[in-house]
Amino acid sequence: MGINYDIKKHIAILSSRIDRNDHICNTELNLIAWNGHEPRFDIREWREDHGQCSYGVQLNADEMENLVNGFQDYKRQVK
Amino acid sequence: MGINYDIKKHIAILSSRIDRNDHICNTELNLIAWNGHEPRFDIREWREDHGQCSYGVQLNADEMENLVNGFQDYKRQVK
Repeated sequence: MGINYDIKKHIAILSSRIDRNDHICNTELNLIAWNGHEPRFDIREWREDHGQCSYGVQLNADEMENLVNGFQDYKRQVK
Repeated sequence: MGINYDIKKHIAILSSRIDRNDHICNTELNLIAWNGHEPRFDIREWREDHGQCSYGVQLNADEMENLVNGFQDYKRQVK
């Protein structure tokens, strides 16, 4: 048994850093189907070659909308 | 040694579900300082009483902006 994933769409690189082993690591937003499930929006850090990844979160489209709206409301409040 | 966190701002509930122990669990966007570090935008699922939380991701303001912009560009493409 293993974990398999299918990256349906690379959407955005949110940031990059060099890890302690000199690998480039990117925090990415992708559309990914994990273990054959419905694709979801996936936020996590990946080594640039996608050989390794960290814990992350998966959100469906409604959750993404709520995230975007919540963040934008927050920005308006703190402005 | 433990983990401590300070929720600076509850920003949004992205979704809710009932877990197998009949607890309400919310996926939330919050501004949280973990272990005394600089507050970051934090996306994870919490039990409603905040007694327990799942793995999640923390993003700084620039990463949040890139996330929002990336998602909105994606939506324009797939429309």
